[in-house]
This record gives sequence, C-alpha cells and structure tokens, in this order.
Amino acid sequence: MPQDLADKLREIIHAETFSRTALVDCLDSVHPIDIAVALQYLADEETKKAVLERVDEERLADLVDLMPPDEGTDLLELAPDEVEEEVLERVEDETAQDIRELRRYEPDTAGGQMTTDFVALREDMTAADAVRTIQGAVDAEQTNWLHVTDPNERLTGYTSIQKIISAPADRRVADFMYRDVQSVTTDVDQEDVAQLADRYNLQAVPVTNQGGILKGIITLDDVLDVMSEEASEDIYLLSGTQSIHPMSESVRRRVLKRMPWLLVTVGMGLVVMFIYSRYESVITAGSLWLVFFVPIVQALGGNVGIQSSTLVVRGIATGEINHGRLRRVILSELAVGLTIGILFGLIVGFAAGAIQNPKLGAVVALAIVSGVLMSSFTGTVIPLLCNRCGVDPAITAGPFITALNDLICLTIYFSIASLVFVWLM
Amino acid sequence: MPQDLADKLREIIHAETFSRTALVDCLDSVHPIDIAVALQYLADEETKKAVLERVDEERLADLVDLMPPDEGTDLLELAPDEVEEEVLERVEDETAQDIRELRRYEPDTAGGQMTTDFVALREDMTAADAVRTIQGAVDAEQTNWLHVTDPNERLTGYTSIQKIISAPADRRVADFMYRDVQSVTTDVDQEDVAQLADRYNLQAVPVTNQGGILKGIITLDDVLDVMSEEASEDIYLLSGTQSIHPMSESVRRRVLKRMPWLLVTVGMGLVVMFIYSRYESVITAGSLWLVFFVPIVQALGGNVGIQSSTLVVRGIATGEINHGRLRRVILSELAVGLTIGILFGLIVGFAAGAIQNPKLGAVVALAIVSGVLMSSFTGTVIPLLCNRCGVDPAITAGPFITALNDLICLTIYFSIASLVFVWLM
Repeated sequence: MPQDLADKLREIIHAETFSRTALVDCLDSVHPIDIAVALQYLADEETKKAVLERVDEERLADLVDLMPPDEGTDLLELAPDEVEEEVLERVEDETAQDIRELRRYEPDTAGGQMTTDFVALREDMTAADAVRTIQGAVDAEQTNWLHVTDPNERLTGYTSIQKIISAPADRRVADFMYRDVQSVTTDVDQEDVAQLADRYNLQAVPVTNQGGILKGIITLDDVLDVMSEEASEDIYLLSGTQSIHPMSESVRRRVLKRMPWLLVTVGMGLVVMFIYSRYESVITAGSLWLVFFVPIVQALGGNVGIQSSTLVVRGIATGEINHGRLRRVILSELAVGLTIGILFGLIVGFAAGAIQNPKLGAVVALAIVSGVLMSSFTGTVIPLLCNRCGVDPAITAGPFITALNDLICLTIYFSIASLVFVWLM
Repeated sequence: MPQDLADKLREIIHAETFSRTALVDCLDSVHPIDIAVALQYLADEETKKAVLERVDEERLADLVDLMPPDEGTDLLELAPDEVEEEVLERVEDETAQDIRELRRYEPDTAGGQMTTDFVALREDMTAADAVRTIQGAVDAEQTNWLHVTDPNERLTGYTSIQKIISAPADRRVADFMYRDVQSVTTDVDQEDVAQLADRYNLQAVPVTNQGGILKGIITLDDVLDVMSEEASEDIYLLSGTQSIHPMSESVRRRVLKRMPWLLVTVGMGLVVMFIYSRYESVITAGSLWLVFFVPIVQALGGNVGIQSSTLVVRGIATGEINHGRLRRVILSELAVGLTIGILFGLIVGFAAGAIQNPKLGAVVALAIVSGVLMSSFTGTVIPLLCNRCGVDPAITAGPFITALNDLICLTIYFSIASLVFVWLM
C-alpha cells in the first residue's frame, strides 16, 4: 500500500535520531513506481525533500515520469534549481512540457493545483468519437463528468459518461451537453476553488486562462487535500503554532515553530507588567482586592476576543464573510460583546460588591462591560483588517489578539479604578 | 441557481426581523424541484426547519420524492415524527423504503451519510451488461469508479467506466475488476470515513453491513461537507462557541451558544479570585511586584496549554494521533513544554531580577518553568482522556483548559512565592 510506504518514510525522516541507512534500505526495497505513488500521498515537504536528496537525477526523472504532471511539478519545486533543470532534460518530452507550463503558476492557485492530464471533449465530436477519446486516455485523471470545449479549446460546457454511452453513436456532443458550467481562472486562490467545489458539489473544477481556454482540471481529491490543509493551518495559527504534521516533527523544530507567538506573548506580557506597576498608587489607595479581580477581567476579555476572532477567521475561510457583509458582521459582533459584557459585568460586579464594597463592585462591573466590548471589537476588526491588507487573518487572531486584550482590559480596569479610588476621593 | 435560492432562504430566515410573507413569496415563486435542490445546499438546520414548517405534507412529499434518499432522510429528520410518518405514506414506495432503511442509522455515521441510490455491478455481468446497467441508472449518484459485488451482493471490488467501455462486450466484469477495495461498515464514524477517503484518494467510499453486503456509497462531495463541518466544529469549540453558520444567526442565539464556555470562564475565574485573595499575606510579606508578574506567568501557561491542546485535537481529527502513538505524543509535548518553560523562565526571571531583586527573579523563573510544564501536561492529557472516554476533545480543549491553567499557574506561582518570601525568612 502506498500509504504505508508514505507513513514509513515519514517516520524514518522524523525519527528522534535520523538514520540514513534506514532510509536507503527502505527506498531500495521497493519499486520506483511505489515510491512515485507514495510521494503523492506525502503532504509534508520535509519528508519529500529528504527523499529527493537521496535519489540521483536519473532515478528522480524516472519517478517524475511515473507521476501525474501536477504532482511531478510539486515534487520538483522542492529540489534545487539545477537539479530541477537536470531532471527536466531527462524526462519524456511531454512530461517536461507539462511541467514547464505548470511551473509558471503559484503553488496555491488554481493553476498550481490543476493537472494538465485530463480528458476534454469537443462540441463537434460525435458520441462515438467521445467514447474513443475516453478509451484512449489511459493515464488521465477521470471523473464521471467530462468538460467540453469549442474548436478553439474554449470551455463551453460539460457532460457525463452516462450521457455519452446512452446517446446514439452519431449524435454530436453539442446536442446533449450542459452549458451552465462553473470554472475558475488559473490565478484564483486554492481556497476559493475549494469553496466553489463545495458550493456547487462539483466532481472536478475546470481551470481556464483569462481567455477562457481550458488549461486543466482540479479533481475533488485535491480539493479535499486543500480544504484539510487550510483548516489545519487556520487551527494551528489560531493557537499560535505553524505546522502541518506537528506530531512527526522533532521537539526542537516544534519549539521553534511556536516561538514567534510565544515571543509576542512575552513581549506584550512585559508591557502589561510595566503598565501594571504604574498603578501601584491606585492599589495602595484602593485595596489589594482590586488585584484579585484582575485575572477574571482578563479571562473574560480574552475569551470573548478569541471567540470573535475565530468566527471571523473561519467565516472568511468558508466564504460566509464577504465584503458585502462586513458592516453587519462588525455591528452584530459588537452587539454580542456588549450583551456578554453587561451580563457578566453585573454578575462579577455583584460578587465583588458583596465580598468587599460597592465601589469595588462598580469598578469591576464597568471594567468588564467596557473590556469585553473592546475585546470583541479588536477580535473582529483586526482579522478583517488583516484580510483586507492581504495578510492571513489567522496569524494575528490567536495569541496576538489575546495579549492585546490582556493589555486593554488591564488599562481599562485600572483607569476606572483610579477614577473611583483616587480622583473621586 | 439552487445555491442562490439557498442563500436567499437563509437570509430570510435569519433576518433580524423575520418576515413570513417574504418566505412565502420566495417559496411560491420557484418550482418545487428548485426548492428540493436548494434544500440540499442548505447546511444549517434552522433554515431547513423554518421551510419545513411552511409547506404542507403533500408538498413536502413531492419535495422528498425529488431528492436523493439520503438528503430526503436528513430533511425528514428535522420534521416532527407525525409529519414524517404522514409524508412517508405519501411518497413513492421505493423512496419510502429507502428512507425507512436510512433512518435506522445515526446521522453522523457512514450509514447516515450514505446514499442507497447508486450503481453497483455484479462480477458475473459482461461488459455489455455493465454498460446497460449504467445507462439505465438515470437518477443514481455516479462517479467514474463503480463497485462490484458477488451474486450475494457482497462487495468484492471496483472498476472504472473506462475499463468497462474498453473491454470486449462479452468479457466478464470479474476478469478486469480490481479487488483491493477499501470500504467501511454502516456504523463507522463520519470523521473516519473522511479520513479514509482522503488517505486513499477515493472518489466514493462503499458502505457495507457487518456481513460485507454493499448497502450504499458515500460520494466525495458529501465527504467534503463532512470535513468542512468537522473542521468548523473543532475550530469553534476550541474558541468556546458552538455553531455552524454563526454569521447568519441572531445576536441572542450567538450569546447563548457561547454561554457554556463563558460560564466556565467566570466560574473558574471566581475560584482564581478566591485563591488569589488567600495569598494576601504573601504579597504583604514580599512586595506588590509579585502581583505585577502574575499576568505574564498566566499568559505563558495559557498560550502553551492552548498550543498543546490544539495539536492534540487536530491530530485526533486528521488521524495523526492514534492509540499506538499516545505515549510518544505526551512525552514529546512535555519535552516541548519543559524547553519553552526553561527558556522563558530564564528570560522573564532575569527581567524580574533586574527590575526588582534576585529573590523575585527566582520565584518568577521557577513558576514559569513549572507552570508552563503543567500547562502543556493538562493541554495534552485532558483532550486525550476526553477522546478515550468518547467525549469530543474539542469541547474541553479551549476555554476550559485555559481557565484551568490560569488556576494552576497562579497556585504554583504563589506557592513558590510563599516558600521564598514567608517560609525561608
């Protein structure tokens, strides 16, 4: 099973103590075609790179010839430029041509995801021609739906194999094809391709150039990979780590991948500490009980901020949030934040008033209402702004927004406290 | 476009002020088949329920007859039992039979996700028989791959339409089919089905009963829906809210859906407040600077805890974490936690030592090392335990673990502080 070989390769590459002999033994014990297939099942680039370094150009060319062109392109992208050129000299002409074409596209666009090895029909073909075309395409990726072009290779529709084999042999494809075809251009983001496939329940998404010429198709199994990858990426970024296969990586690498967010947390934490210490006089004038309520105010603000930012990040990923809805999204999140703030401001404020005195209660209640409202504001607006500026909103939506809200809630809390305990005295 | 109708229905149902007239107008203006198709594109149950309440049993029966049996079953599940029975009396016999069969399965299992309306071939058919079977199946969900059974309807393999139309007309399917077929039983969780489809790049997953009899197939577009839904669910749960279409819901409903986690945060926050106040004497004996470092200790613990729990939740969802790897997962996460703890304990500890005195520095450093280590422990072990006990690990992995780690870090910090500032004096 190619999946087992892929798993084995991943395990060898990521073992706590890497053994080159184990890798060599593993690669030598299987047929090249099994390696070619296994490489297609490997999602993490690190393993692929390690395998690449092990095989010479001749063997690599054999592997690439055995793979669909989109997978071959992805693999070669991981190799050094000189190796890539060397391999392209050695592979079959058609493979080299396909790969040179595919290399022109960014990997995370429709062009980078599509395969050029697919079956397309022409409108003026007869059903019998169509059957022969399908029979002749041995290697091509096939689904039940086939795309149809005009004589200039412009995408004009699609039909099913069932329609073709049910039609009289001399009937033209143009007479029984569907014309309401959904497609994307090569520069469309892979996340948008996944949304389109999901929305219209497509088995394959046709990809055209700007002129409408059919250049390739993206099959649903590639869409599935994209969706799974994008969801993992968002989830990991939201929690402050960047990884695809976290469990098979070394401890050192895992620490490094969390480092940027931890540094943000510590940096902002030191600022919080510094600002906190500026309020020493307020604490002395008021009471130490002011201090005991800091964690609950920060926890509520942090929680609501994360809820808002997660909804925005996922809403952008699934397409539920789009430009037309921005105002509504922000306003309704603020309404949610205000409701939660008032509700829990009252609860915790009453508790503080009962435990200590009404003044503390008032400070805590006001701080929670305004802190939670502000947290839902930053949690909503910062990811939206990131998205507008072309930055992945998930990068800021996790630890950064939490740290920011820690700071905001603390400042609001002690500003109100100094008003009540220092200025009003 | 059915998707546009679905969007329109969702917008009407979730408008801030719901208008029954708008819904009636919308439903009356389109053909029943468009409604049937639109309902299949609607993922949120609330909209479906609202539409159900509007149509009478006669119209509902027409709609259900127009839908694939798996979608019809899902729709009827939302209706009251008496309506469901009434509708089943009115639909075509075959539809009623299919739906009665499908109703027996839990919605989130392979049985609940599969469609019974599919094309299967028999081993002893000729290629010509197979072509006729495909031509005859007008409504069935079809992919390029068709499943093959023995004369007892036991799943034995699969073949492609291409193979069938390329084979001589009198050749038996048994002679050119593939026998290494992947399948699931009806009781398998839908998340495992998605993992299988993803791992083996399947276009459709065949579903059998315990005896190996082929009962249905799950097509890749349904798998895509499952993966997207499960990813959204995990993301939302991790941030402490439960929802599928958060942006189209009312403010009241959104507040309610976040309530359980907010209550956990407040409940645990009050406990933190209470424990914090028990350490008043330590703060008096030491200095108020002890207090100023509480937020940064809690932020680091919280951050690392969320990172660990997110990795575990996603690792379980993608299948990267399984029983064989539990020990390795826990140990390596603890190693990561210890490394991060020592690194940042030293940084923040030195800062505290420089700003105040070495004693405070030692307390902060020790608290960060042990607090971060404990946080990575709870962040790893609690989701794993939940999973072992059949509880969705994502439920506890967000705000609950953060609140717990707030508590743990505070307790550790002040225990060390009381040792240094009270007992050692």
